[in-house]
Amino acid sequence: MNIAFVGLGIMGGPMAANLVRAGHTVVGYDVSDERLDALVGAGGKAAESVAEAVAQADTAITMLPDSPQVEEVVFGPDGLLEHGRRGLLHIDMSTVRPETARRVAQAAAVKGIRALDAPVSGGERGAVDGTLSVMVGGDPGDFEDARPVLVVLGTTIVHVGPAGAGQTVKAANQLVVGGIYGLVAEAIVLLEASGVDPEAGLDVLAGGLAGSRVLDLKRHSMIRRRFAPGFRIDLHHKDMGIVIAAAREAGVALPLTGVVAQLIAAARAQGYGSLDHSALLKVVERINR
Amino acid sequence: MNIAFVGLGIMGGPMAANLVRAGHTVVGYDVSDERLDALVGAGGKAAESVAEAVAQADTAITMLPDSPQVEEVVFGPDGLLEHGRRGLLHIDMSTVRPETARRVAQAAAVKGIRALDAPVSGGERGAVDGTLSVMVGGDPGDFEDARPVLVVLGTTIVHVGPAGAGQTVKAANQLVVGGIYGLVAEAIVLLEASGVDPEAGLDVLAGGLAGSRVLDLKRHSMIRRRFAPGFRIDLHHKDMGIVIAAAREAGVALPLTGVVAQLIAAARAQGYGSLDHSALLKVVERINR
Repeated sequence: MNIAFVGLGIMGGPMAANLVRAGHTVVGYDVSDERLDALVGAGGKAAESVAEAVAQADTAITMLPDSPQVEEVVFGPDGLLEHGRRGLLHIDMSTVRPETARRVAQAAAVKGIRALDAPVSGGERGAVDGTLSVMVGGDPGDFEDARPVLVVLGTTIVHVGPAGAGQTVKAANQLVVGGIYGLVAEAIVLLEASGVDPEAGLDVLAGGLAGSRVLDLKRHSMIRRRFAPGFRIDLHHKDMGIVIAAAREAGVALPLTGVVAQLIAAARAQGYGSLDHSALLKVVERINR
Repeated sequence: MNIAFVGLGIMGGPMAANLVRAGHTVVGYDVSDERLDALVGAGGKAAESVAEAVAQADTAITMLPDSPQVEEVVFGPDGLLEHGRRGLLHIDMSTVRPETARRVAQAAAVKGIRALDAPVSGGERGAVDGTLSVMVGGDPGDFEDARPVLVVLGTTIVHVGPAGAGQTVKAANQLVVGGIYGLVAEAIVLLEASGVDPEAGLDVLAGGLAGSRVLDLKRHSMIRRRFAPGFRIDLHHKDMGIVIAAAREAGVALPLTGVVAQLIAAARAQGYGSLDHSALLKVVERINR
């Protein structure tokens, strides 16, 4: 298949390389020449603009930092709606607001372009290994057409609803992940302040109803205060902005989510933005000293 | 071994029966004659007072609703400290404040009685099946002496620190469990208010970093609004009182825990005390209608 791939960063770079390896023709675009060179080194082609990348494509994948970049790449004069062919399948794998995803889908439909929102979880490791989880919103038929491409990138590929639904599920995922980090951080602070060995304590929690993937993967590094990313606080902070926006759009109040968002904002304000999101522990500690 | 068992309720009843089945002599006491009859039916003996139950015991287990009952059974004129033999091993498996556990241990030591705090998780099912998790605080030698009894009652038996440490770990467990219920409830409300199928959405979450035992066991029943207990809101509310007290004793502020405690208090205030703690979902819904 002819695939345009826009955004070749930490996530997009290895994802595009995996598509090349699977036999697809991949024409990439990124603002960074270095990243474009890396794609060419992996067997892909480099375009000099979004317009050039999408001109011959059947499928266009975008993997961009945030809503403004997606809007520019989709709606801009050099963009995908202006230069993509009728019938083009656009898969936005960035994490953006559900409302952005719905606007993209509506505008695309006017141009005869089919749009899916398909944010991922699984991080850099999942992007490199092709083991991402992909939550897809959009037309079920378009989802089926996208599946052969998506299975190259991930192992869990789920259609969760209409346009925007993928982003809503990603938002729900991020609120739960951020919240569990906060709860585990508070548990560690309580145990240590009470003179209890946190390793022994969290081992018990991990084996019972308090158990979670976060406890399984991160309790040892959290107790040792090792916060190399992983998934950076800066990114989780951006994602909590999307969660809060999604809740406002849906018209719901989410009290725990509000506190989680503020704690992650505090982590960033305190200068921990480039640490792993498990560094939420440092915020809970700092409240207490 | 000669075991006194005080408190033969939903948890204590089946635990005492399991000890009888394992070959121990169990002399039980409870304020309810009905519960005493059940123990006798299971092959145990009924005492007419705490004093009579503990008089000949090597080991005394208490499994009581809350701190006041433990204090009465331990410190009262008919109680364990007054009537237990020197060298008696007292294992309090109730969930109470860490500070209560420390006071019990100190007073016991004066009388030559050895005290462990050993709260459990795993609920009625775990009590019946002998698959509880037991978190034990106290002297390591006393813990080793208690182990042959505890292995009859549970499958995960962990010594987590000195007197009170078992209760602190139980408190940490309850704050994490309550918090995860709250987060999952908010995720469900966000998904449904956004028009996304919560089953599909939570399936994705369960398979990734947002995954937890709560999602594994309870997401289907929560989405269907099935809240038969399980573990009742009333009990989790009592436990959050212990968590908040433990945090105060340790001198730490835990912001998420504070909100979780208030949401569970709201559940009780709204009349959901006898429902399963997953009914926290009803509180998050009620905020939004």
